[in-house]
Amino acid sequence: MSSRTVIRGGLVVTASDEIHADVLIEDGRIAALAASGTPAAEALTAERVIDASGKYVIPGGVDGHTHMEMPFGGTYAADTFETGTRAAAWGGTTTIVDFAIQSVGHSLRSGLDAWHAKAEGNCAIDYAFHMIVSDVDQKALKEMDLLVEEGVTSFKQFMAYPGVFYSDDGQILRAMQRAAGNGGLIMMHAENGIAIDVLVEQALARGETDPRYHGEVRKALLEAEATHRAIKLAQVAGAPLYVVHVSATEAVAELTRARDEGLNVFGETCPQYLFLSTDNLAEPDFEGAKYVCSTPLRPREHQAALWRGLRTNDLQVVSTDHCPFCFSGQKELGRGDFSKIPNGMPGVENRMDLLHQAVVDGHISRRRWIEIACATPARMFGLYPKKGTIAPGADADVVVYDPHAEQVISVETHHMNVDYSAYEGRRITGRVETVLSRGVPVVTEREYTGRKGHGVYTPRATCQYLN
Amino acid sequence: MSSRTVIRGGLVVTASDEIHADVLIEDGRIAALAASGTPAAEALTAERVIDASGKYVIPGGVDGHTHMEMPFGGTYAADTFETGTRAAAWGGTTTIVDFAIQSVGHSLRSGLDAWHAKAEGNCAIDYAFHMIVSDVDQKALKEMDLLVEEGVTSFKQFMAYPGVFYSDDGQILRAMQRAAGNGGLIMMHAENGIAIDVLVEQALARGETDPRYHGEVRKALLEAEATHRAIKLAQVAGAPLYVVHVSATEAVAELTRARDEGLNVFGETCPQYLFLSTDNLAEPDFEGAKYVCSTPLRPREHQAALWRGLRTNDLQVVSTDHCPFCFSGQKELGRGDFSKIPNGMPGVENRMDLLHQAVVDGHISRRRWIEIACATPARMFGLYPKKGTIAPGADADVVVYDPHAEQVISVETHHMNVDYSAYEGRRITGRVETVLSRGVPVVTEREYTGRKGHGVYTPRATCQYLN
Amino acid sequence: MSSRTVIRGGLVVTASDEIHADVLIEDGRIAALAASGTPAAEALTAERVIDASGKYVIPGGVDGHTHMEMPFGGTYAADTFETGTRAAAWGGTTTIVDFAIQSVGHSLRSGLDAWHAKAEGNCAIDYAFHMIVSDVDQKALKEMDLLVEEGVTSFKQFMAYPGVFYSDDGQILRAMQRAAGNGGLIMMHAENGIAIDVLVEQALARGETDPRYHGEVRKALLEAEATHRAIKLAQVAGAPLYVVHVSATEAVAELTRARDEGLNVFGETCPQYLFLSTDNLAEPDFEGAKYVCSTPLRPREHQAALWRGLRTNDLQVVSTDHCPFCFSGQKELGRGDFSKIPNGMPGVENRMDLLHQAVVDGHISRRRWIEIACATPARMFGLYPKKGTIAPGADADVVVYDPHAEQVISVETHHMNVDYSAYEGRRITGRVETVLSRGVPVVTEREYTGRKGHGVYTPRATCQYLN
Amino acid sequence: MSSRTVIRGGLVVTASDEIHADVLIEDGRIAALAASGTPAAEALTAERVIDASGKYVIPGGVDGHTHMEMPFGGTYAADTFETGTRAAAWGGTTTIVDFAIQSVGHSLRSGLDAWHAKAEGNCAIDYAFHMIVSDVDQKALKEMDLLVEEGVTSFKQFMAYPGVFYSDDGQILRAMQRAAGNGGLIMMHAENGIAIDVLVEQALARGETDPRYHGEVRKALLEAEATHRAIKLAQVAGAPLYVVHVSATEAVAELTRARDEGLNVFGETCPQYLFLSTDNLAEPDFEGAKYVCSTPLRPREHQAALWRGLRTNDLQVVSTDHCPFCFSGQKELGRGDFSKIPNGMPGVENRMDLLHQAVVDGHISRRRWIEIACATPARMFGLYPKKGTIAPGADADVVVYDPHAEQVISVETHHMNVDYSAYEGRRITGRVETVLSRGVPVVTEREYTGRKGHGVYTPRATCQYLN
Repeated sequence: MSSRTVIRGGLVVTASDEIHADVLIEDGRIAALAASGTPAAEALTAERVIDASGKYVIPGGVDGHTHMEMPFGGTYAADTFETGTRAAAWGGTTTIVDFAIQSVGHSLRSGLDAWHAKAEGNCAIDYAFHMIVSDVDQKALKEMDLLVEEGVTSFKQFMAYPGVFYSDDGQILRAMQRAAGNGGLIMMHAENGIAIDVLVEQALARGETDPRYHGEVRKALLEAEATHRAIKLAQVAGAPLYVVHVSATEAVAELTRARDEGLNVFGETCPQYLFLSTDNLAEPDFEGAKYVCSTPLRPREHQAALWRGLRTNDLQVVSTDHCPFCFSGQKELGRGDFSKIPNGMPGVENRMDLLHQAVVDGHISRRRWIEIACATPARMFGLYPKKGTIAPGADADVVVYDPHAEQVISVETHHMNVDYSAYEGRRITGRVETVLSRGVPVVTEREYTGRKGHGVYTPRATCQYLN
Repeated sequence: MSSRTVIRGGLVVTASDEIHADVLIEDGRIAALAASGTPAAEALTAERVIDASGKYVIPGGVDGHTHMEMPFGGTYAADTFETGTRAAAWGGTTTIVDFAIQSVGHSLRSGLDAWHAKAEGNCAIDYAFHMIVSDVDQKALKEMDLLVEEGVTSFKQFMAYPGVFYSDDGQILRAMQRAAGNGGLIMMHAENGIAIDVLVEQALARGETDPRYHGEVRKALLEAEATHRAIKLAQVAGAPLYVVHVSATEAVAELTRARDEGLNVFGETCPQYLFLSTDNLAEPDFEGAKYVCSTPLRPREHQAALWRGLRTNDLQVVSTDHCPFCFSGQKELGRGDFSKIPNGMPGVENRMDLLHQAVVDGHISRRRWIEIACATPARMFGLYPKKGTIAPGADADVVVYDPHAEQVISVETHHMNVDYSAYEGRRITGRVETVLSRGVPVVTEREYTGRKGHGVYTPRATCQYLN
Repeated sequence: MSSRTVIRGGLVVTASDEIHADVLIEDGRIAALAASGTPAAEALTAERVIDASGKYVIPGGVDGHTHMEMPFGGTYAADTFETGTRAAAWGGTTTIVDFAIQSVGHSLRSGLDAWHAKAEGNCAIDYAFHMIVSDVDQKALKEMDLLVEEGVTSFKQFMAYPGVFYSDDGQILRAMQRAAGNGGLIMMHAENGIAIDVLVEQALARGETDPRYHGEVRKALLEAEATHRAIKLAQVAGAPLYVVHVSATEAVAELTRARDEGLNVFGETCPQYLFLSTDNLAEPDFEGAKYVCSTPLRPREHQAALWRGLRTNDLQVVSTDHCPFCFSGQKELGRGDFSKIPNGMPGVENRMDLLHQAVVDGHISRRRWIEIACATPARMFGLYPKKGTIAPGADADVVVYDPHAEQVISVETHHMNVDYSAYEGRRITGRVETVLSRGVPVVTEREYTGRKGHGVYTPRATCQYLN
Repeated sequence: MSSRTVIRGGLVVTASDEIHADVLIEDGRIAALAASGTPAAEALTAERVIDASGKYVIPGGVDGHTHMEMPFGGTYAADTFETGTRAAAWGGTTTIVDFAIQSVGHSLRSGLDAWHAKAEGNCAIDYAFHMIVSDVDQKALKEMDLLVEEGVTSFKQFMAYPGVFYSDDGQILRAMQRAAGNGGLIMMHAENGIAIDVLVEQALARGETDPRYHGEVRKALLEAEATHRAIKLAQVAGAPLYVVHVSATEAVAELTRARDEGLNVFGETCPQYLFLSTDNLAEPDFEGAKYVCSTPLRPREHQAALWRGLRTNDLQVVSTDHCPFCFSGQKELGRGDFSKIPNGMPGVENRMDLLHQAVVDGHISRRRWIEIACATPARMFGLYPKKGTIAPGADADVVVYDPHAEQVISVETHHMNVDYSAYEGRRITGRVETVLSRGVPVVTEREYTGRKGHGVYTPRATCQYLN
């Protein structure tokens, strides 16, 4: 049966190497790498040959933070697992880790089952789950152990959104203690939601209802405070900590301080914090609503701290927090009251390209691009070495990337199920050309050749980064 | 001609991956890696097959800091390039970067030529050179440009040893400015030698002549001070900085501070600082002299900061600063006056094993072992990807390492040309079994099969770590 | 009428000066200071002359943190305003600022009235009130403005004791915002009580019921966390902050960090944290219960950080947090369950002596003694220059202190209404000899000459330390 | 004989108090303070009564850093002790501490004698000396002990000006060790002069000769570096350290770091760094030369860090570094070569007024004004309590200051012997009205009533600030 592919002549870029090598794929996995042009390379033969001359051959992206079909504020994130994973593939991402949600009063299991039901048979690429824990009680704590065993090895808690996802410090401490025991990783939405809600109420009372006030009330200091608090609670529990969507200079500083002390503390940021700012939130005619997410976009000056954090490894991962809501009908729920705007932005399709642009712009090196977008999320979430690298034995999730092609990001051309692009009109150097998922072409020379149901659930090992 | 070798069934460990793969070597380079047991692996054939089942297959070590035959204090380091590189090979190191020396009043060129003459035709493994700049003047600055072009891309200066290697802050600044322009990397011996010499004189005047006073006068604060000063001068010059043999907690803190700010500042430590302490310097009957080196051994408490620095990547490299002097006849020059003890210790043979022991002891992970001992020094000094990794296209400098073998370090069994071991009697888990240099067996199942002259001079590119 | 007193020949020590001066008191106030032995001094005449030769003449102590008759855990602090203020006078303290309490569901006013009722006509020395705000709502916020106007200018909130005094971060933020507007000072009990209660429950479940577990569950990191959080909330509110009873190194570090940034953040510690430790909490036979207070006593190593903080002015005030419960019948409520031990210790009588001992021991200077015990609390709480100094115009609250006398602290000799001393058997150099309150002798050559009702309520101005 | 004066009705402001008191002066010293309007105050009688109603009564300023008649760059500072101290008096300063200079190759004694000869009989106000140590050898170290005994208790060294005043780190360490033993205080000009001289040479070689390049080559990082180095050397020596004329944000940060650790490290800044900036250095037509001093003026942004340092007490003293050179004939020596411009600025007359303006502007409080300008320099340099306060027993160095008067600073009206004002045209609220030196009127209602020779040499005790 025809299951061998060889990708010839590209520059294979991984988190650690840049080599001119031919890549042999057998039965969905990387079988061999051989130095291009050598007899060993010539000896690699296959039914399917992909010419990657002048191109990069990179691991498929691993997006560790997506919210497909997520219920929020009385509506649902607009991308289904079908549309969302297809868009991801178009953007060179071959694995997502989505968030299953425990509803208050229900078990983790039932939440996880619901998410399995949504995803199964619908995905174009492989997927896994984190678990949002909204209701920490003894039962939930015990379920955490079971979930770790079956491959859901990370648990998200919220210091924001009182009354919805919010956990108090006692619930956080208990979950962290449990994670310290079972190998789980606590992921934290670090904003002091209790204090923020006071500021929201006061802002609305002053008539400050436009989207930009969303950014003003969710203060950088309150992100930094919660980040610090989560770190201290993790230290008390003896547990590792992963802080999601870090956006503020002051929050990066807290992570830096903790990491300097040798703590197992990790930080993720997202393209929106690296490329957008409160200038977008202030766009007129309610257009700012397109950029409402939490943590919020920050003033432009914060971007330098995030790039520096990515270079110094005080931030390790760039995920998307993909959670799209259409402007029309969804974002508009918050006209006249910014607190009613569904929080979230589209992005799963744009991450690899935006970060390649950062390579072009000199923010990061080529290897670091792959590290923050592929290898580290794979290791962080226990998917390595199946995912996140190109090495013998790994899944053949491979992207042929044209570093010289030019494109303009636009809602006109993107594949996400949402009526706007957060990066509309942005010119990017670099473009995905071909995408393999376990050796199967999902995108072939910029044509979609995938299918829903190809992507399978991928149980995860525990975090591979702990000291 | 028989130039193909395949290493089968081992666990290939690199800085980023741990994979079960067979490694094909053709014409002295890694030609291919194939997942063990797959058809692709079976297709790899070779005249010579090495069975690595149950073993690690790792890149040969890169020791970025050796001083073979170095003149110091009226005598010479006891290892020649012949004996020293043979011992290195025994210890799993396949590349050294030694320090050529500019004498005061002479050109860089004449110093470099002298070192080429010492090394050429004598080495068992490949070698390269840094250049010690003792006399910064306009001529020397211009020569730096030429040396970078021909592959000597790093320059060491000393803030210690006034009257010998010492450069003042103006000479340091000028050299750094030059390096900022030509891509060179300034390596710094960071100790405030001017202040230390005052303390030496005072100690001797008080009759404090034993080796342990060597450790007392060379204070941690004066290492930290010089580290900070070198960082600030580098910042003024806009140049990167690599601080050699970091030994003090306070010096690590200065590196951490600088790196948090995103500066291109790097730090190296050595096994002696990780495994030995002032307890050794205080050994009776002048035995402490065996452990006299600069920066000096520190109280045991400093070790934790060094291990933490290696984990947090505030320290990036472990080299040996191999500079052996025999106890008998050499170290003894300092009886009655510690300041006359030749500074330096043997170690080129022990580094890979001691660091594997650190893996066994839980200080670092397996991948980090390879990173700090092979991959990072190779990248730091422009030898990557030829050296420091196992990837198609790289030089076939490969070590088959038995992680379960036990050994006891001793002068009785070591191969360095020195009459003592700094680690005498220390039990180690792990041992080098076979070593290939560019595909040629130098050590074969613990038998020396190398020859002097196999090792060749390897010009270097510039540092690959700059932000 | 005979209302003139002159104190001759002593060394007048204030926060800023040490001068040989005679002090003239007229009508209860300091009328004049004249250089001893000069004609100007000789011209000072009075009905009553106190000879202070060889003694110090110092301002009466200002204890900014007492809890007389405070209800806690189903019992009451054992000192009434009568017994407590008499003991204070014996110890050289002439002003206390006690905490009136708002009960949940009641107004600030009713709480304040209740405290006025307890104190009025019963005090030997002057007194003022802070207000504990247990229930922040719109009504309470408005009452804060009124209280500031009538001299209750500081408001205490608790991040500990959920269900009792606890305020959540929203309530804290609102109160801080109000204080930012009305000039009030927020005082914070900074411990993460939500997390601590989890640890308490877990400890008890493990059978860890002895007093020493009180110290273990109330972790230093959770004091530091809350301190940091309070600082950030104050920064968001633009309000000053005073952190009470700081006990942990890590909490001092947070204050230091904030003060380095120029924030109006202040810290108080207490003698128990400077002189006692977890060694006391671990005393056998339930004796440890005597030392149960919150924040808890810390391991001995923390003392150095507190002394350093007092020297560097990162801590500004030493108060007592006097809140005595008898061992017999009160502390014993917690046998078998440390969480039921009433929190609090006696100390109002010992503060000035213990801090003089710190002068003798070289921890602080003589002027700093007066500064942290008299002048700064007076300024911090708006009592300056009436209280806390010896200067023309100030209230004649004066202590003649014998720096050479020796005493042994003991329940046998102290005047507090509690059946043990936390400092039993401790030898002190220095002793109060005579105490004047507004010129009236309360203690005369170690004889009690005061009376209940002499002390009057003293309304306060706002904090005088804000940048 | 008429030697009694009473100053009635003013607000006496000291570092710690603000009181409405009458001040009695007898025989040149403060005899008594009495609360204004009390019988005790009425009882104060004197031959001379000064009405200070509506005015401040403050201690005369103590300027701890002046260079009268100082030789520099082939010329001399333009103010003699006669003209300089007269101007000081006009500006409300009643004590200066000037710098005697050891020339290279000569003894401390001969330098000190020379300065005594210049000053004796010429001063309008009291004076004392620091000693500049330019040539640290065994003889000089021994002389330091003698000088401390006779009241010259502080020694200045320079890390700048190689070949002139420069001491290397060994000389600095030796002097610090000596000071640690004899109670002396090392004052440091902290700039890395060796590195700066390289930058000077390079700038001139590029044709950058204008005054503004003086500011560019003397980089903030090189001030911070030297500050850090001086701190570490002091730490090694166990000695206190006083850093003069701190101008850079980064240098303040080093002081803050050291003080947080509890080290005896002190910092002085000067009005020129608080009120002027590189904008002045860049004034056209060589006018920038008026502002050439070292450390140099910094960009305007640095001022905030200095003000914050003064508020947080990371900076303790404001001196003038008064060292005037006329624009005409002196500053002009550096036309075409900024390195030949004599370093120094006039200011001894303006300090008290400029700092009162800072009170008006809200940078500091009234008490802090007196503290940084009078009390702390007096304590720092062992002149307290004779100087720097208004307290019984102190020298009657008193200024009646009108806080409401307005003035415009100008060369037209100033009394310094220099042909320009660094603050020309600056409007100030507040003005000195009357100045007493040891009870003798030097300025009387803005008329000069002093005389040369009134001021006497004042030996000093050692620093009163050491922990």
